[in-house]
Amino acid sequence: MSNDNFGHVRIDGARLWRSLAGMARIGATERGGVCRLALTDLDRQSRDLFVDWARAAGCDIRVDRIGNVFARRAGRDDRLAPVLTGSHGDTQPTGGRFDGIYGVLGGLEVLRTLDDHGIRTDRPLEVALWTNEEGSRFAPAMIGSAVFTGASTLDYGLSRQDADGLSLGDELARIGYAGDEAPGHPLHAAFELHIEQGPILEAAGRTIGVVTGAQGQRWYEITFTGVDSHAGTTPMEVRRDALVGLAELVLFVNRLGHAGAPQARATVGRVEVGPNSRNVIPGHAWLTVEFRHPDEAILEEMDAALRAEVARIAAAAGLQSRLEAIFHYAPVPFDPACVAAVRTAATELGYSRQDIVSGAGHDACHLARSVPTAMIFVPCIDGLSHNEAEDITPAWAEAGANVLLRVMLAAASVDRNGSVV
Amino acid sequence: MSNDNFGHVRIDGARLWRSLAGMARIGATERGGVCRLALTDLDRQSRDLFVDWARAAGCDIRVDRIGNVFARRAGRDDRLAPVLTGSHGDTQPTGGRFDGIYGVLGGLEVLRTLDDHGIRTDRPLEVALWTNEEGSRFAPAMIGSAVFTGASTLDYGLSRQDADGLSLGDELARIGYAGDEAPGHPLHAAFELHIEQGPILEAAGRTIGVVTGAQGQRWYEITFTGVDSHAGTTPMEVRRDALVGLAELVLFVNRLGHAGAPQARATVGRVEVGPNSRNVIPGHAWLTVEFRHPDEAILEEMDAALRAEVARIAAAAGLQSRLEAIFHYAPVPFDPACVAAVRTAATELGYSRQDIVSGAGHDACHLARSVPTAMIFVPCIDGLSHNEAEDITPAWAEAGANVLLRVMLAAASVDRNGSVV
Repeated sequence: MSNDNFGHVRIDGARLWRSLAGMARIGATERGGVCRLALTDLDRQSRDLFVDWARAAGCDIRVDRIGNVFARRAGRDDRLAPVLTGSHGDTQPTGGRFDGIYGVLGGLEVLRTLDDHGIRTDRPLEVALWTNEEGSRFAPAMIGSAVFTGASTLDYGLSRQDADGLSLGDELARIGYAGDEAPGHPLHAAFELHIEQGPILEAAGRTIGVVTGAQGQRWYEITFTGVDSHAGTTPMEVRRDALVGLAELVLFVNRLGHAGAPQARATVGRVEVGPNSRNVIPGHAWLTVEFRHPDEAILEEMDAALRAEVARIAAAAGLQSRLEAIFHYAPVPFDPACVAAVRTAATELGYSRQDIVSGAGHDACHLARSVPTAMIFVPCIDGLSHNEAEDITPAWAEAGANVLLRVMLAAASVDRNGSVV
Repeated sequence: MSNDNFGHVRIDGARLWRSLAGMARIGATERGGVCRLALTDLDRQSRDLFVDWARAAGCDIRVDRIGNVFARRAGRDDRLAPVLTGSHGDTQPTGGRFDGIYGVLGGLEVLRTLDDHGIRTDRPLEVALWTNEEGSRFAPAMIGSAVFTGASTLDYGLSRQDADGLSLGDELARIGYAGDEAPGHPLHAAFELHIEQGPILEAAGRTIGVVTGAQGQRWYEITFTGVDSHAGTTPMEVRRDALVGLAELVLFVNRLGHAGAPQARATVGRVEVGPNSRNVIPGHAWLTVEFRHPDEAILEEMDAALRAEVARIAAAAGLQSRLEAIFHYAPVPFDPACVAAVRTAATELGYSRQDIVSGAGHDACHLARSVPTAMIFVPCIDGLSHNEAEDITPAWAEAGANVLLRVMLAAASVDRNGSVV
């Protein structure tokens, strides 16, 4: 089976849009967003709806022990490793209608389209709904795909607790999604369709982002300690003001990001100042720093620059400092053949496209460590995501799913002369 | 009566130190400090102890409607306006053993010393314990002296509420200190003895601070508004990061303070950042700024510089800004004759001394608007105050009270050729 045989096939954009709207009613917020935290009753309802729709499309449903749901459409040779797509169904507390679920329902739309046209692929196809991608209820994020790929153990995943002390395992059982499959079955290739969650594609006027990989990440926590003292009675020259140290570091981190533009990201997102009283010079300041870049060597340089600057600031301002590197995530290059397939599909479909590096983490990043993987991005309006105002156009939704259809058809064909896609 | 007649009289430093230690047991904290918030049961206990001690020293007790307590020692002519000293008995939540109460018990020690020596002054003497100086429980600070001098109305003072919604008036009545005197009786002069609450005297190796006045204060609240966005997916060049604006302003305020050293103070004490999540570029940043300086013209210049810089930062960083001037307190010059009396007393007693401007607000600042007033500072160790580790030496405590004794004797004499002191 060659891709070219089905060059005329297109997904049904209106049906996809209706499915997205129907799913968005589960956990809908007053401001037009969605709150559907992992393993809540609302998450169960969204899983149930996906399972109903997938069964109606002729799929078998399998659920693994970490609660990942796989809707499987039989291939011509069902012993072959399947081609998988999918994403997650959980949201941030003030999340949007597309982050995650667009990739799940885009995959389902591909299967429905194949049914419409009576197409049977050589390999089986699977649409996955991964457990707890957001990490909003149970930290860390992307637990389902981490356990699936062996990046985390099953015991670790099941033991995660929410803020009320409820465990992920107990909550999975409570909502009826503690499956019996051992996580981690073989896959031939994987594609994840997702909104960009950033402003790049929209600003460039491109419809398809060909995701070449995901940025590496380094997370830090830094503390400056000075001396709390009275704002009125302490002369400037004897102050040991931890907030001044923090402010210098915020500006340094920002300059470091700009120096590495356009690919570098450098962010101070969270600060805590003590005693945080308007008449007291702060003796305590704590901040988070995170760096992202697709090149590990540049992340190393940023790491060294940060450490040097923290030490310099502390020495100059008479502060003590402590730097803790709390998280290190290597850049993820996606599979060149899978990436090329996405690029080719977009071109053949006549969609404007550009290569892009994912700044966010995705389940595909875990999969890419062991399975040939790529991602397809579509723009989102004003780059907004993790926000109730998150939005995309029906045309973008349709375009992304058409690219997904094409690359899944290609990858599911055994007539590839040894190439994955 | 001339000051010189009693040049040999000294207070009893050991007795003063015992009184301070005894009072510090009321509300003592595990870390050696004191927590005695205004109009709590602990505040009542400390008032009761002061009243017992003052009655034992032969004083009459009067309490006004805002709860200020006046221990009055009769003069040779009781129709004359009294010379007043005193301070406050309430503390910060993690306060020390000397802030405020040292001035109350130093005054009481003066009266006891006069009894020891059988000295009767021409004018009556009063030791005041002012209500709610700290402002920790009921905002604003210095309510008792504000109502006494008419800076605030009695109704305003009584209607202040704590965090639980309890009113100052109800709490005064509950602890039995809602007096029946109308606040604001005539005074001839006032002296407040207090710890410096800063590092200047100790660093200079001086025992007595001759307080020439109090700094003016300007308080501001400033908000920068940008756009919350994803730290991984938002390129540096499109960010509108409110925390970066805040950091620039923190450094500007600090530079402004240093430019006006040694008299200027410029402090950012409190910041709030939203959403304050490590992976989100902060779209919201709020901070407080306070300026202090003894010269109103320089405070005006600092005000103008701040406003210009907030606007410049906002324009350069694509942020919206809002500046609110929330509090304006003019510099307070103390009475030249009272200040000179303090200087002379320190010299005659052989104590090292230097002039100093109070960076903190004190009840004496209210009194100074209508009564000839000055303050006497003694050092505190490492400049620490509003801190459980606040400490002074017995020698400093004794020296300050000896200066107070001398200036009260001088001011309470009618043989002054028309001078207050």
